[in-house]
Amino acid sequence: MIGVQDVVGLAAGTLTTISFVPQVVRIVRTRSAHDISWWMFGIFSVGVALWLGYGIMLGALPVIVSNVVTLTLATAILCLKWRYGRDLPPPRYGAEQEPGP
Amino acid sequence: MIGVQDVVGLAAGTLTTISFVPQVVRIVRTRSAHDISWWMFGIFSVGVALWLGYGIMLGALPVIVSNVVTLTLATAILCLKWRYGRDLPPPRYGAEQEPGP
Repeated sequence: MIGVQDVVGLAAGTLTTISFVPQVVRIVRTRSAHDISWWMFGIFSVGVALWLGYGIMLGALPVIVSNVVTLTLATAILCLKWRYGRDLPPPRYGAEQEPGP
Repeated sequence: MIGVQDVVGLAAGTLTTISFVPQVVRIVRTRSAHDISWWMFGIFSVGVALWLGYGIMLGALPVIVSNVVTLTLATAILCLKWRYGRDLPPPRYGAEQEPGP
């Protein structure tokens, strides 16, 4: 029988997991990822992998399922950062436009 | 006595929590947050709050501690997005520069 804490855990895992989808969509739509931090998603991905291990040790299904999906999405964002976030940042208003290196 | 799973949980919580610090630093340093998704950090914050509740129900200290700090950092990013991410995005190379609305 599913208890209240399982429902809360599933809701928590669902929200923190699906939250990455809008970020993926935004990067793909704008083709821009300059403001995304490599360090954040890199360290985050390692942490999520450890959470996955923790969930397996605990036998906590919400932790396991949400972290498998979150790890997939976080890795996707790193790939998109590689694709769209390595260019020179666009110039700001009023700045001289110079050809990039 | 601290077991292996507690060490893994603490490591996981530490990494996923501190991962947000580089993102905060990046936004403050570049004064830019256009590529950050409102939806991602908004939904993520709600999910983290639920994880906090789940951790309290489970009595899982790594879950509780990491999610208090993560919630603080995610909220900070939302505030920084409000501060630095609401302007018009900078023009791209080659685009006509037009005054904003």
